[in-house]
Amino acid sequence: MEYKYAQRMSNLKASEIREILKVTQRPEVISFAGGLPAPELFPIEEIKRVNQTVLEESGAIALQYTTTEGYLPLREWIANRMNSHLGTSFEADHVLITHGSQQALDLSGKVFLDKGDVVLCESPTYLAAISAFRAYECDFVEVPTDDDGMVIEDLERILNSVKNIKMIYVIPEFQNPTGKTWSLERRRRLAEAADRHRVIVIEDNPYGELRFEGESLPSVKSFDGQGYVLCTGTFSKIFCPGYRIGWIAGEKEIIRKFVLAKQGTDLQCNTIAQMEIAKYLELYDIDEHIGRIRDVYRRRRDLAVQVMEKEFPAGATFTRPHGGLFAWVELPDEMNARDVLTLSLEQNVAFVPGGSFFPNGGHENTFRINFSNMPEERIVEGLTILGRILQTLILPRK
Amino acid sequence: MEYKYAQRMSNLKASEIREILKVTQRPEVISFAGGLPAPELFPIEEIKRVNQTVLEESGAIALQYTTTEGYLPLREWIANRMNSHLGTSFEADHVLITHGSQQALDLSGKVFLDKGDVVLCESPTYLAAISAFRAYECDFVEVPTDDDGMVIEDLERILNSVKNIKMIYVIPEFQNPTGKTWSLERRRRLAEAADRHRVIVIEDNPYGELRFEGESLPSVKSFDGQGYVLCTGTFSKIFCPGYRIGWIAGEKEIIRKFVLAKQGTDLQCNTIAQMEIAKYLELYDIDEHIGRIRDVYRRRRDLAVQVMEKEFPAGATFTRPHGGLFAWVELPDEMNARDVLTLSLEQNVAFVPGGSFFPNGGHENTFRINFSNMPEERIVEGLTILGRILQTLILPRK
Repeated sequence: MEYKYAQRMSNLKASEIREILKVTQRPEVISFAGGLPAPELFPIEEIKRVNQTVLEESGAIALQYTTTEGYLPLREWIANRMNSHLGTSFEADHVLITHGSQQALDLSGKVFLDKGDVVLCESPTYLAAISAFRAYECDFVEVPTDDDGMVIEDLERILNSVKNIKMIYVIPEFQNPTGKTWSLERRRRLAEAADRHRVIVIEDNPYGELRFEGESLPSVKSFDGQGYVLCTGTFSKIFCPGYRIGWIAGEKEIIRKFVLAKQGTDLQCNTIAQMEIAKYLELYDIDEHIGRIRDVYRRRRDLAVQVMEKEFPAGATFTRPHGGLFAWVELPDEMNARDVLTLSLEQNVAFVPGGSFFPNGGHENTFRINFSNMPEERIVEGLTILGRILQTLILPRK
Repeated sequence: MEYKYAQRMSNLKASEIREILKVTQRPEVISFAGGLPAPELFPIEEIKRVNQTVLEESGAIALQYTTTEGYLPLREWIANRMNSHLGTSFEADHVLITHGSQQALDLSGKVFLDKGDVVLCESPTYLAAISAFRAYECDFVEVPTDDDGMVIEDLERILNSVKNIKMIYVIPEFQNPTGKTWSLERRRRLAEAADRHRVIVIEDNPYGELRFEGESLPSVKSFDGQGYVLCTGTFSKIFCPGYRIGWIAGEKEIIRKFVLAKQGTDLQCNTIAQMEIAKYLELYDIDEHIGRIRDVYRRRRDLAVQVMEKEFPAGATFTRPHGGLFAWVELPDEMNARDVLTLSLEQNVAFVPGGSFFPNGGHENTFRINFSNMPEERIVEGLTILGRILQTLILPRK
């Protein structure tokens, strides 16, 4: 049967990651593919307690509909957290609770993007942001990006020459997929450029709390002049992703538009999930919890980098991220990471080829490594296998 | 500051219901406004137990990411339930778990609607379906609707004369806002018309399980020939709405498109919410639970109808629904229900004026009464107050 879909559907294809993740559900597979947190760090006992407490204290409220904006004590916590960590000055009414920060991206598309509008992004950028925005039939222009973030001269050139630019999408902290972090200077200059050109910035920040070394930097938002910058965040990486609770924060006038868009989209987020997280934040010390996550991920990052340094051939270069979940590998230009994946899957090792992270294609010689999800011995085993495959395919051993 | 929003945002306005609901959060207000289930019926103790069981048995899975499609045992239960209650023949792969059935509507818009496409709907229809579809810049044509559903001759005439019809949206069971139920004949003829004209039907069914009297009828989907009919459902009215777990079911080819759309929208629904509902369905008898809900709502419906018969003036006519949550009141043409609301809010009684349920406007002489959320004595008190206001405004007492 031929069904008539909307035109936008011809732009959407299955997320390569989620397709690979289906393969990696077999327990024998060593997966560097997903962006999955380490499940052994989920505070299960604490969550059992907060669930019972919330249901005892206010079960009838926790299981009922609530406001689209989200649970007020949670929005207050988020505003305070961003203010103390990111140099912002938010109140609860600047914050909308979203179904993971992914929904913050979808709603950003819904609120701002018309067909043919242009989104500027880092090159490469987060795969599922491309899917979220593409559903609103936008085009992408990739801004050349180095180790410090977008190259501002290139950004300015594009802002001056390309029409219909509606939005700039960036992940300044431990970027997905590269693991790179923007310098302070670049953050400031991005905010200034957005202000001058009156273009919305979506500052996506799912990994900022997971810094293993170095000093935290103020957000792009902290340099915002006229309210063009919106910030997203999520509990997925610092608490657990199964709840699907994230947020977007920005000028009240803009957030009111997001609330309108969310009303028609799904009315509101899960009430009890919001109340359980708020209760957890009241009863427990989330900084202590985040400290444990950081320690585990730091060791895994260290180990991943060590094994890659030892086993990867010299022609394969990779990032050494200061936080987050991901490292990024570049192979010689003529190679295709999809071919490497075919070989590595035969040996039960998975990762995500990098091509999908470039909205306009190319760069098939790259791939992304997640180091947060696998225990240490499997990181060593998997990256050793991958290194040996790369050795047979490329180049003299380093 | 002037921010440049997408064109679709000029079509969206705040949901009148959700704005009124904010007012009705004051405890002294007797609210017939929302579509809120009775919170005293939520199975709080059972939910406490299923939460602990799920976290003990599989906490690390319940708190982690899962597939976009949703939790398999839950999708299996839904397919079986629809097959036994609605005359369908679904398997788990025909079902996508959505963030309430509201998201099923949003995704229907995303998958099918281009700017300028036409959605046919009952007149009146569900307010938040209008918001969901309108975000995709469609137009609406209201199909004349009587006590048995859409008038098929009018539907045929519209299908033959209006261009770009992409979708027919209906709520055949205890419709929101009218409480009316489609006859078997109309269901069959709708499916046949959709098939002949190759137009998608969204059969929205949040209230079907809440029948107080009479025999259940087969769904529109049960008469579907070539797969043009999609069915939504939700746990909001038979379990609790705070979890935001609903679904959409249809041909596998179409559901795959919905999965793609949902990936970019929010990745997946809350994992633990899905597992808790599945565990509840395994450990408890949901039919017994639904029986309790039906008994309570039936008594409230009886009481509401009794009070309206006694207190409303003859010029105010109303429906006597056989199930669901809502009754519908029509006042003399020259009256405006918003004026009535102003007066009744002064006496702490709330309802939703009917005009918003007509996508193309008009019909300001109507309003919707929810009878599920208030305890019996407040139903009597509130509708008595409302009846007396109507008496002063209209007509000789009946």
